[in-house]
Amino acid sequence: MNALDPSLEAAPIADWRSYPISADLAAVSATHDSLEISWSDGRVSPFHHQWLRDNCACSQCVYGVTREQLLEIVDVPEELSPQRTRIDEQGHLLVDWQDGHHSRFHPGWLRAHAYDEASRAERRAQRPQSRLWGAELAEQLPQFDYQAVLEDDGALLHWLLAVRDVGLTQLLGVPASAGALQQLGKRISFIRESNFGVLFDVQSKADADSNAYTSFNLPMHTDLPTRELQPGLQFLHCLVNDARGGESIFVDGFAIAEALHQEAPELFHILCTTPVEFRNKSRTSDYRCLAPIIALDAHGLVSEVRMANFLRGPFDAPAERMPELYRAYRRFIAMTREPRFRVQRRLQAGQLWCFDNRRTLHARSEFDPASGARHFQGCYVDRDELLSRIHVLQR
Amino acid sequence: MNALDPSLEAAPIADWRSYPISADLAAVSATHDSLEISWSDGRVSPFHHQWLRDNCACSQCVYGVTREQLLEIVDVPEELSPQRTRIDEQGHLLVDWQDGHHSRFHPGWLRAHAYDEASRAERRAQRPQSRLWGAELAEQLPQFDYQAVLEDDGALLHWLLAVRDVGLTQLLGVPASAGALQQLGKRISFIRESNFGVLFDVQSKADADSNAYTSFNLPMHTDLPTRELQPGLQFLHCLVNDARGGESIFVDGFAIAEALHQEAPELFHILCTTPVEFRNKSRTSDYRCLAPIIALDAHGLVSEVRMANFLRGPFDAPAERMPELYRAYRRFIAMTREPRFRVQRRLQAGQLWCFDNRRTLHARSEFDPASGARHFQGCYVDRDELLSRIHVLQR
Repeated sequence: MNALDPSLEAAPIADWRSYPISADLAAVSATHDSLEISWSDGRVSPFHHQWLRDNCACSQCVYGVTREQLLEIVDVPEELSPQRTRIDEQGHLLVDWQDGHHSRFHPGWLRAHAYDEASRAERRAQRPQSRLWGAELAEQLPQFDYQAVLEDDGALLHWLLAVRDVGLTQLLGVPASAGALQQLGKRISFIRESNFGVLFDVQSKADADSNAYTSFNLPMHTDLPTRELQPGLQFLHCLVNDARGGESIFVDGFAIAEALHQEAPELFHILCTTPVEFRNKSRTSDYRCLAPIIALDAHGLVSEVRMANFLRGPFDAPAERMPELYRAYRRFIAMTREPRFRVQRRLQAGQLWCFDNRRTLHARSEFDPASGARHFQGCYVDRDELLSRIHVLQR
Repeated sequence: MNALDPSLEAAPIADWRSYPISADLAAVSATHDSLEISWSDGRVSPFHHQWLRDNCACSQCVYGVTREQLLEIVDVPEELSPQRTRIDEQGHLLVDWQDGHHSRFHPGWLRAHAYDEASRAERRAQRPQSRLWGAELAEQLPQFDYQAVLEDDGALLHWLLAVRDVGLTQLLGVPASAGALQQLGKRISFIRESNFGVLFDVQSKADADSNAYTSFNLPMHTDLPTRELQPGLQFLHCLVNDARGGESIFVDGFAIAEALHQEAPELFHILCTTPVEFRNKSRTSDYRCLAPIIALDAHGLVSEVRMANFLRGPFDAPAERMPELYRAYRRFIAMTREPRFRVQRRLQAGQLWCFDNRRTLHARSEFDPASGARHFQGCYVDRDELLSRIHVLQR
């Protein structure tokens, strides 16, 4: 394979992803329903005929402008087989199908999408991993400069990766003026609206429609657990903070879930499997959502914590599970109060928090509205938008 | 219990829900960790001490303005027991706790939240049920008048219930002017923005960033399966439809999932449990979402279909599952093409579709852009907003 055109190495396949060639195609053999590729590094990958035909990238099968598939696999026979297969001089896999169609597969692309066990394990290992934290994060808070983030794509990416992997960040040097979040939100994508508005003002209000809009101690929670999809990122921008009290406190919900998993797997399990109702009502809205407190993703990893005691409905579970459900719920809340997990900071005017609202629980200590003004503005941006922006910046 | 004050019957408990008294409290007995309530109709409901204390509705435990809980259950001992319990002259359950706290429970509220098996089954049976449909819906399309929906809350509710339960509706008498969807969206709540905008224009475009923006046949799909939360409702508003072709076609994804479940449970199962990647890319965005094609809710019922062949990535599953995954995927697509499931209609200017984008798959037949103009405007509203609006209208 040394004759391979070096310009092909890492050639982008018109979808802004590139597929470096880490191993060459060494041999192809056939079974009744698949091809077996042997790679130059010894790995063997099966590719079913259906899968190969489905992923043909020719201009009949994929529309070049959108890079979206035109073929639907149901339009070729289920038993379609190759008539002939070979590796061409550029190291690509060529398949001539029984029905006269031809497909050509780039070796880097094939390797990146192989589904033998080793290849799948390799991809799993490459997924971004959350960096869990406890109280020690207070001494090494990921802090970023607002102006740099606005002006420089490198600084933006650096910040967004910390948001994704750590889940708690601070921006400094933010104008202490209402609306500054709009511009920042646009650096990622768009702001997710809610019934509380595009931007929401966190102030003590007489006619509060949430305990967030009082001066009370607000226990550890995620925002809008009452929605099927909790907002991904939460921004809290401090315009003025002259009142006594009102400190911001954070815990890493993933770290607590992990600690609970270690300490009492049966309590962790019941929080993963018991749907709990969260609700919020006002004169014009009535939201209800039924979902477990800890959600696992398709790979069984913790992907979300959903928690706000003040928005929770009565537990509705089989009677025999109720004692254990309370043990689990009590233990989870008790952990959010343990100093080893808590980061406490007082936000100053011109600073803002940006954190993963589906991971990092936040609390506010009680404040005295008579002692001075306290005004934060907040907004939400969804996780999809964060990840899309990171992908684009990493192209 | 005949002495019960009739004014208490169905008294709203300050949260806009009312709890009619269908049975009276007849007796209370105690076990080591719970009270057992016997009702006048013979039902017996256990209520654990922790559950009762957690749900105390007194003004120390719940803030009256927001109706949100102040107590966190972890603040009372795990072994807290009642010192004394009784049924008062108004039929309420009174509990005097060992620590001096007092709780009072309305019998209608208690019955509505009881978690004995019979009470839970009763609540399950009362949940709104999807009305599945096939080709016959074309003759009985749920149609509503745009002006009536804008002006009359009764007409609005009638329409929204059809959207919730049938998942495909048509509004007639809509102004054929761009932007009319804005006003309609506000009747429910707010419009969900996406990278395609608040309103999006469905027209054939030279630099299409989705096959939706071509004149091609567009196979059965849900919109934005590339997002963790697919948009709940989709609106398609016809401004002009003078081109040849371009018919709208719909199938009930829940009906197809159910038919597949009946016909081949193992194929249904593999579509419920295999995460599939959907993706959409442009110069400024790069969305990827990994989720199964059929999602089940906490009760094991089909809650969502996620499908757009043109946005799907290569299947990534263990090799031994691949043949069955293709069988399932082929069968699902083949079913979306069966006439028994399909509703086909040509939308006229001044009409719009509103459908459940997570249930009702839609397709567009190829059109000839040279034969006349075709311009639809679309937008999304989330399921949370639909259900919240229905709850408020039903108060």
